[in-house]
Amino acid sequence: MGGDRVPEEIVAGALEAASPEIVPVLFGPAGLDTQGLELVEAADPIEMHEKPVEAVRSKPQSSLVAACRAVGEGDAQAVVSAGNTGAMLAACLFEIRRLPEVDRPAIAAIIPARNGPTVLLDAGANADARPEHLLQFAEMGTIFAEEVLALPRPQVRLLSIGEEPEKGNQLVLEAHALLSKSGLRFAGNVESRALLEGAGEVVVTDGFTGNVVLKLLEGTIRTLLDALRDEIYSSTRGKVGGLLIRPAARHLRERLDPETYGGAHLLGLRGVVVIAHGNSTHRAIANAIRMAARGVEHRVVDRLSERLAAAVLASARSRNSTPEPG
Amino acid sequence: MGGDRVPEEIVAGALEAASPEIVPVLFGPAGLDTQGLELVEAADPIEMHEKPVEAVRSKPQSSLVAACRAVGEGDAQAVVSAGNTGAMLAACLFEIRRLPEVDRPAIAAIIPARNGPTVLLDAGANADARPEHLLQFAEMGTIFAEEVLALPRPQVRLLSIGEEPEKGNQLVLEAHALLSKSGLRFAGNVESRALLEGAGEVVVTDGFTGNVVLKLLEGTIRTLLDALRDEIYSSTRGKVGGLLIRPAARHLRERLDPETYGGAHLLGLRGVVVIAHGNSTHRAIANAIRMAARGVEHRVVDRLSERLAAAVLASARSRNSTPEPG
Repeated sequence: MGGDRVPEEIVAGALEAASPEIVPVLFGPAGLDTQGLELVEAADPIEMHEKPVEAVRSKPQSSLVAACRAVGEGDAQAVVSAGNTGAMLAACLFEIRRLPEVDRPAIAAIIPARNGPTVLLDAGANADARPEHLLQFAEMGTIFAEEVLALPRPQVRLLSIGEEPEKGNQLVLEAHALLSKSGLRFAGNVESRALLEGAGEVVVTDGFTGNVVLKLLEGTIRTLLDALRDEIYSSTRGKVGGLLIRPAARHLRERLDPETYGGAHLLGLRGVVVIAHGNSTHRAIANAIRMAARGVEHRVVDRLSERLAAAVLASARSRNSTPEPG
Repeated sequence: MGGDRVPEEIVAGALEAASPEIVPVLFGPAGLDTQGLELVEAADPIEMHEKPVEAVRSKPQSSLVAACRAVGEGDAQAVVSAGNTGAMLAACLFEIRRLPEVDRPAIAAIIPARNGPTVLLDAGANADARPEHLLQFAEMGTIFAEEVLALPRPQVRLLSIGEEPEKGNQLVLEAHALLSKSGLRFAGNVESRALLEGAGEVVVTDGFTGNVVLKLLEGTIRTLLDALRDEIYSSTRGKVGGLLIRPAARHLRERLDPETYGGAHLLGLRGVVVIAHGNSTHRAIANAIRMAARGVEHRVVDRLSERLAAAVLASARSRNSTPEPG
């Protein structure tokens, strides 16, 4: 029941995604027309403007909290929500819980860059971050890119304001040092100008910067294509040309459309969680559900847990090992 | 001598900007062909990769430091450089010095938004900032927009990850509180998705986020228009359409081109300083020089100094004033 276009687009999207492998269950008010899909009754919706932690504590029967609880209790394998992101994060922490190796879950957004998909994280789960969080985001992003996007041993880049290691704010300088010492395939800093071109396979940043970047990409693509259309249609010559390039423009818009992925995984929890846009259409909701299903199919939670635990163990071993006397 | 395309593009740009009102003086090595413009000999250039403060201290005769010194000593009215931004900031602080009311100079970039120009600051002078710096950026941006862009009483927005006052990182939350109490025309948070549309007349952020935003805008516009061209030229139908829309596309590209402004003012110093792109063409250099001249013409340094001093005074008065006994 969360999001700006409820419940019609949500129900339509769930129907669209339903298949022999995907069985959507809707959480919403009694009497909702689910067109035959299973309904779990949940009243008391959390609104977009509510304070996350308070709302989640005071509304345990809301659709958002109840859907997360279903994953926490094993009744569902994944949850998808277009609701209040902060409330979703809080509900996930209470009901699904973090993996023991993870300090902060992160939103892993996929940027449809020109040279292939780039995983950007954190795209907005945590507004503030410490250097060690960025290292964990890099570890989670690497595993996610390998397991779900089938990118073998992806490059990791750190978003900064210059490619040189000494460029960046305090957080980035310290994260750079941690990433350099990690066993990840760290390829240094990347500047934002290269993001849509596709510079790195995994790009890490704090959730404030990541969210600013994601929204700026979306807004700029939309504004630019709208402005181009206006320019074109301001002359007769342009109008004819506009008709001729329409298939090309539509193809580009679709390729770069954030709805292609529909949502972003919230990584670091004991269950699969996909966060969709507040203003998702049925198409975006359907794609977000398919994305969640892909996470289940690729056992992304188990793989994260196994590989992060192995990394923690390896790092503890290397700390404890003492050099042999010569 | 700073920048990626020296010296040809710099000399050509200076020639292009020269007029009865604008007299460019070049700082460069002996024997440079300045095509008749005045040359001040300065050897020992600072390279793009050098550490700013060290480079400025160890190379007082470099073209970058010597050009700043000329402004500090009153021999020139403004300095324009396409060199190492960090070194430029350091040289300005040593040679031109801060206005007494300013803690941190800020780069004020102009975004050619759809609904009119938006001043974004800090676009990269300081990688880290405190809330009180953001308040000062807002004050400087307001004065700059009024004096140089002729925008009367411009709106000020704070870049964040949601429009609600409780959205943002710690820095933004605290800056929001300070801006709300200020006498500025503060209109709350703005999301990055609205930036190219033109949401606020002055948008403040820390220099890390501002630099990421500026480079992402530039990169996204370039990548998107390139990708559109490739899509269009992949079919015969598209090729014909592409020819017909070429004037519209060129017009849009020019309107959004970062070279339109050519550079950004570094505000908060006792002199006019414009920082141009490292890879500026002659056209960008010419526009950066004209922009510096506009700053001189509008007495932007004096106006900043007068108005910031008045603001400091007013705030001291309001703190010292005690309520009359009833």
